[in-house]
Amino acid sequence: MSEPPSMEGAYCPLPITHRSQIVMGHGSGGKMTHDLIAQAFLPAFNNPALMAGDDGAVVDCGGAARLAISTDSHVVWPLFFPGGDIGRLAVCGTVNDVSMMGGEPRYLTAGFVLEEGLSLELLGKVIDSMRLASVEAGIQIVAGDTKVVQKGKADGLYINTSGVGFLAPGRELSGRNGRVGDVIILSGPLGDHGIAVLCARGELGLKSEVKSDIAPLNHLTKAMLDTGAEIHVLRDPTRGGLATSLNEIAVQSQIGILIRESAVPVRPAVAAACELLGFDPLYVANEGKLIGLVAAKDAQTVLAAMRQTRYGEESVVIGEVVREPIARVLMETEIGSHRILDVLSGEMLPRIC
Amino acid sequence: MSEPPSMEGAYCPLPITHRSQIVMGHGSGGKMTHDLIAQAFLPAFNNPALMAGDDGAVVDCGGAARLAISTDSHVVWPLFFPGGDIGRLAVCGTVNDVSMMGGEPRYLTAGFVLEEGLSLELLGKVIDSMRLASVEAGIQIVAGDTKVVQKGKADGLYINTSGVGFLAPGRELSGRNGRVGDVIILSGPLGDHGIAVLCARGELGLKSEVKSDIAPLNHLTKAMLDTGAEIHVLRDPTRGGLATSLNEIAVQSQIGILIRESAVPVRPAVAAACELLGFDPLYVANEGKLIGLVAAKDAQTVLAAMRQTRYGEESVVIGEVVREPIARVLMETEIGSHRILDVLSGEMLPRIC
Repeated sequence: MSEPPSMEGAYCPLPITHRSQIVMGHGSGGKMTHDLIAQAFLPAFNNPALMAGDDGAVVDCGGAARLAISTDSHVVWPLFFPGGDIGRLAVCGTVNDVSMMGGEPRYLTAGFVLEEGLSLELLGKVIDSMRLASVEAGIQIVAGDTKVVQKGKADGLYINTSGVGFLAPGRELSGRNGRVGDVIILSGPLGDHGIAVLCARGELGLKSEVKSDIAPLNHLTKAMLDTGAEIHVLRDPTRGGLATSLNEIAVQSQIGILIRESAVPVRPAVAAACELLGFDPLYVANEGKLIGLVAAKDAQTVLAAMRQTRYGEESVVIGEVVREPIARVLMETEIGSHRILDVLSGEMLPRIC
Repeated sequence: MSEPPSMEGAYCPLPITHRSQIVMGHGSGGKMTHDLIAQAFLPAFNNPALMAGDDGAVVDCGGAARLAISTDSHVVWPLFFPGGDIGRLAVCGTVNDVSMMGGEPRYLTAGFVLEEGLSLELLGKVIDSMRLASVEAGIQIVAGDTKVVQKGKADGLYINTSGVGFLAPGRELSGRNGRVGDVIILSGPLGDHGIAVLCARGELGLKSEVKSDIAPLNHLTKAMLDTGAEIHVLRDPTRGGLATSLNEIAVQSQIGILIRESAVPVRPAVAAACELLGFDPLYVANEGKLIGLVAAKDAQTVLAAMRQTRYGEESVVIGEVVREPIARVLMETEIGSHRILDVLSGEMLPRIC
């Protein structure tokens, strides 16, 4: 075991972990990512907006106005896969994070790290894909930056997008706001993105018809919020999948969450691929799905509104918030027993977004 | 000569250039970067805030309030060098871009691409450096993202920062606003950052005492703007150096710019290193300097205010806006002749920021 690194001249207590190096698991979106953020980043950048631990930050903008701000770097490999590419992912990922705060996304920035030797034709396709996704989401890319690194120092390109949206007065969505009696709604089947990207790698000799679900969800969240229903939490289950996102919410809100396995939709082709590969679709990444925690009295209203939108047609109730066990997620299996769903530990699918 | 790439199914006319691949020069900040942006990015993301061509975008925020938004990805190599590191650079770079719009920077996001195998001790030092720069600038890092790529796929880490600032009502700074009669002010000696980073690479066997000038310039710009003076343009001459920034402004404002070589400050150690390496300090990157175009009547007031601030003590007037030649930068040399200063073409120092 190596000594914990010394931080000469630095206040930061630093990664209290048994590892002294970054490993792929730190990018999983699961437990290791959470630990790295909690131990290395949060103590240094400590402020209320960041510490809230949501998909984005809510900050003042003078007067009554508030902004939702979010950022995401995209390193997905391969760059193109059935249903999408790194460009569509980069726009939708940040649009969705702003939307999950209840914000109306308006402006995006785009920072490109390009690899020497990248074909301009390929870059043009990625840019055009970003353009189309921007039009669909109704946002503008207002600022950009371009850097170039030597051949071998990036896989074609990495794209960071950051987003700014407006929050309606009184809107308070947060992973901390779940409460007993809330119903858990999921906007559609799980695992499409993760399986589509994995199959596109071709390493496993697996062929599949599965397409990524990448989509801008801001029109869906707007339809939900426009009902005036009591919506407490919105979150998109990306890296780490549904199970990890529900665990985050259970911990933030100090609630128990119970879901029913039979109610969780998974397409047959995704289920088959997961079966073959030993993956659990509850932990596989999605890029066009959301979870909503909604007051039970409003659940049918919200569901009806969701089902009228393009990316919410397959929305279903998958469970509810329960009093116990606090900060835990339980699943009632198809045979009627209960098991605890933990967060993703380690790395399942590297470079999925 | 290769065929221009076909863009099947895409509207984007795409890089009309004789090269069909990204080369290091596309990241120089000079002519090739400009061409790539103009040909590939602007036609696709076309909107007024982006097309203004400034260091950041100015956008509405409901009511009278306006935001200044900017983004920068940082891929500097090496990660640490005399006077700074990638963390300080990442915070200051974006703080400065927001400041150059006349905005008061408030919130930053930070997106990390970490290389597998990166030491947590080193990451901790970078994070701490970002913390210290944030405190100095008086901004908050409110949202973040962490991705991990395989060993060899990044040089330790890349950091994107995006920034949001507030714009006072009526404040209109832009590279388009330069006008005949303006005086050109430079906040201090040129080339420190580029030479410090280059020497830190150790490849040239060159040793030098030069430290990077990386600094947050928001307190300096605030002091300038608080004078109430007529300030038309602010810009920080980073990649591509003073000559490239002045050319950008000359083109945007359709003005001529005349500077006097004898008035442009360069530290002896920087001048010596440039002499040895065949560099022109007018094209070397700075990270803690700014150029101001200020109405002549207010120049002394602004200079006095600048000299009272930590990063403006060495501010000087280096020239003025002239009627002709339009969209060109002229330099009066030390022997009294005039020569045209063009933008940087190709790549001088890769991965300088």
